[in-house]
Amino acid sequence: MNKYPASISNLITQFSKLPGLGPKSAERLVFYLLKQPGEFLNNLADNINCLKNQIKICQTCFNFSTKNPCEICTDPKRDKCIICVVAYPQDLLVIEKTGEYNGLYHVLDGVLNPLENITPDKIRIKELVNRLKNPKKIKEIIIALNPDIEGESTTLYLTRQLKPYKVKTTRLAKGLPTGADLEYADAITVTDALKGRREV
Amino acid sequence: MNKYPASISNLITQFSKLPGLGPKSAERLVFYLLKQPGEFLNNLADNINCLKNQIKICQTCFNFSTKNPCEICTDPKRDKCIICVVAYPQDLLVIEKTGEYNGLYHVLDGVLNPLENITPDKIRIKELVNRLKNPKKIKEIIIALNPDIEGESTTLYLTRQLKPYKVKTTRLAKGLPTGADLEYADAITVTDALKGRREV
Repeated sequence: MNKYPASISNLITQFSKLPGLGPKSAERLVFYLLKQPGEFLNNLADNINCLKNQIKICQTCFNFSTKNPCEICTDPKRDKCIICVVAYPQDLLVIEKTGEYNGLYHVLDGVLNPLENITPDKIRIKELVNRLKNPKKIKEIIIALNPDIEGESTTLYLTRQLKPYKVKTTRLAKGLPTGADLEYADAITVTDALKGRREV
Repeated sequence: MNKYPASISNLITQFSKLPGLGPKSAERLVFYLLKQPGEFLNNLADNINCLKNQIKICQTCFNFSTKNPCEICTDPKRDKCIICVVAYPQDLLVIEKTGEYNGLYHVLDGVLNPLENITPDKIRIKELVNRLKNPKKIKEIIIALNPDIEGESTTLYLTRQLKPYKVKTTRLAKGLPTGADLEYADAITVTDALKGRREV
């Protein structure tokens, strides 16, 4: 015997394909599962099975939801004049959790990255532009992408694409995060904080 | 909306219960799965479902197998006079992969750890002793546990338990691992290597 029984090794192979899991951690997972009650496994399997069936992609904002259009796009209490552009649904939730934003969203499903062949047609930029064209009632677009190289270049690209529509385009503030220590802050962050200084 | 749809958040909760996965990596897994074809998900779910049904625990050596007794215990080519004691089925495979061992195994399913309340009755020590009692043809027990505190104390405990049966009890050699650099080896390892020196 120089390998595990098929049902163990197949599951190890499948788990090791998932992000953040290598062969060793996948092996550990499978042996952990083997020790769990059958009920736990059935439940996990059911949830994986149902995932795709129960989750839809909202065809307006491209967020994952149980409905299409999603709860946010159809919520009458939300401000339909403002769209916050995020890279992934996870980022959308981060903005929602602040409780400070009451507008709509647009999930790009990625950021531009020429090295990984993610060009403008691969993410939902066209769909964002279409949302501006149609009812022409959008007043502001907030670009909420990560302040890293890919996020910055996507922000720049989006700004140019949105220019013809004469809509106010803003981006999240850059500066010192709460609890930061000026002594250890990097020069770029301090520069951003200086440039973005506000009256108190 | 300040949380994900139920089918997403349930699966995140379940994944984050697995070893080595926290809430963030579980979230990442679920969003990765959402992008995979339905077929991949069904396949993964099926494999999780089948895991328990197809895998049995051999009632002789306590290894996971599709059969009981397992392939190793029933293999006529194997030396039935020698038993290698390992903590987990994963360790068994490591020994098998060397191709140097042709005897039987005994999976303890853990090592003694009083702090975590793993006492001798929680692991399969009684079952090992029973294997010695019955046919009285076992000539050697190789204790192949990790050379750490828990492994060492379990080895000591096992040695004492096996003493009345007058069976030869050995343990894996301790010394410098292949490719090691003496300059950086710790004192205990070098002491072990000195004590275990062999004629060339």
